[in-house]
Amino acid sequence: MAKFMDVHSGFVGVTANQLKEAHERDAAIEAEEGAHFERAWLDPESGKVFCLSTGPSKEAIMRIHERAGHPTAEVYEVSVEVA
Amino acid sequence: MAKFMDVHSGFVGVTANQLKEAHERDAAIEAEEGAHFERAWLDPESGKVFCLSTGPSKEAIMRIHERAGHPTAEVYEVSVEVA
Repeated sequence: MAKFMDVHSGFVGVTANQLKEAHERDAAIEAEEGAHFERAWLDPESGKVFCLSTGPSKEAIMRIHERAGHPTAEVYEVSVEVA
Repeated sequence: MAKFMDVHSGFVGVTANQLKEAHERDAAIEAEEGAHFERAWLDPESGKVFCLSTGPSKEAIMRIHERAGHPTAEVYEVSVEVA
């Protein structure tokens, strides 16, 4: 399993409820790809969303987001983390 | 206090130790700005780093990163979060 950060653009003005709904659409199908979406952060001014997930591959993450209706090509495998 | 995600580019091939050192340079001065860097994730292949922080303003986060030697203009205030 690897960890991924993906970036979405164009979510200007999106509300907390709308982000929650989008996240739930990912969560509803994530098991089919062996992935898990941990957290998502939204800047409604710039429209940027950042999603942190685990999964078997970048392509698995992209497929889930595409099927959930919010595709992105910007998926990064973040193999190093500090806290 | 607000929450921020910032993005750095150009960290291709950076190691876990180097990321830790960079993060510690932020941590060493963050209190001067009333900020806190929570976590950082690196994709050493693309060279992207994502930093999650809290602080009083985007400018405070930018000043810390600049003084620590890794400036970025890409700082997003992520006022909405789901988990």
